[in-house]
Amino acid sequence: MLEKDGFRPLDRQECLRLLAKVPVGRVVYTRQALPAVLPVNFALDADASVLLRTSARSDLVRAVDGFVVAFEADEFDAVSRSGWSVVVTGRATVVTDPGEHERLLRTGPRSWMPIHEDVFVRIESEMVTGRELTDPHGTG
Amino acid sequence: MLEKDGFRPLDRQECLRLLAKVPVGRVVYTRQALPAVLPVNFALDADASVLLRTSARSDLVRAVDGFVVAFEADEFDAVSRSGWSVVVTGRATVVTDPGEHERLLRTGPRSWMPIHEDVFVRIESEMVTGRELTDPHGTG
Repeated sequence: MLEKDGFRPLDRQECLRLLAKVPVGRVVYTRQALPAVLPVNFALDADASVLLRTSARSDLVRAVDGFVVAFEADEFDAVSRSGWSVVVTGRATVVTDPGEHERLLRTGPRSWMPIHEDVFVRIESEMVTGRELTDPHGTG
Repeated sequence: MLEKDGFRPLDRQECLRLLAKVPVGRVVYTRQALPAVLPVNFALDADASVLLRTSARSDLVRAVDGFVVAFEADEFDAVSRSGWSVVVTGRATVVTDPGEHERLLRTGPRSWMPIHEDVFVRIESEMVTGRELTDPHGTG
């Protein structure tokens, strides 16, 4: 069903299935009282939380650990003017449990950039919303 | 020059040139005290501000008009693990000047979705930052 604004809302399962298709998303947070956003590669954990791998002393860790953040991913096609976007909103925390950290070193995402003193940041998928845009000018 | 974290910072002109290449970016703002993000198609105006076209009564207009927001665009390639991202941070305002509104109806961005009572939102490019990621595991 299309909403009147041309978007079809996606349910949680559709959102997670789409999230799993793309390698990069964007962490949305607050830094020095200003809105901030950083693209990062990520993976979904078995509990549908978003996992990032970064440096222990990164600005990102300082800014997000313990705070509610948003995480966005999307895919759009400029020719057909169609696509989808998904936003996960939830608390971000650095994984501190040693066993969990070990597991993620083996199975978690690998950072696309060189990092130091690897840590994993988990964003709980407390709220998952998404929408699909289909060409509003199409005849379909 | 590569920074030690694998990113090359981009200057303002490089950022604006890259922004002009892509049709979709993401508005990053605060909604009900939570970080929020919405992908939208956009255009750059002659003064390097970001222009969005939306419905006058949209949630986005209510949330951003008069506030400092971030606007992000990026392109990444998963195979080469390379790409770029640009963030514009500045005050967002609805264009209220009738002459300016008329000009933008003719020359401004067209929304990818059906909208009602078109308004234009301008995000001033007060701060423009960007970075380029090249494959850290490459030999280049």
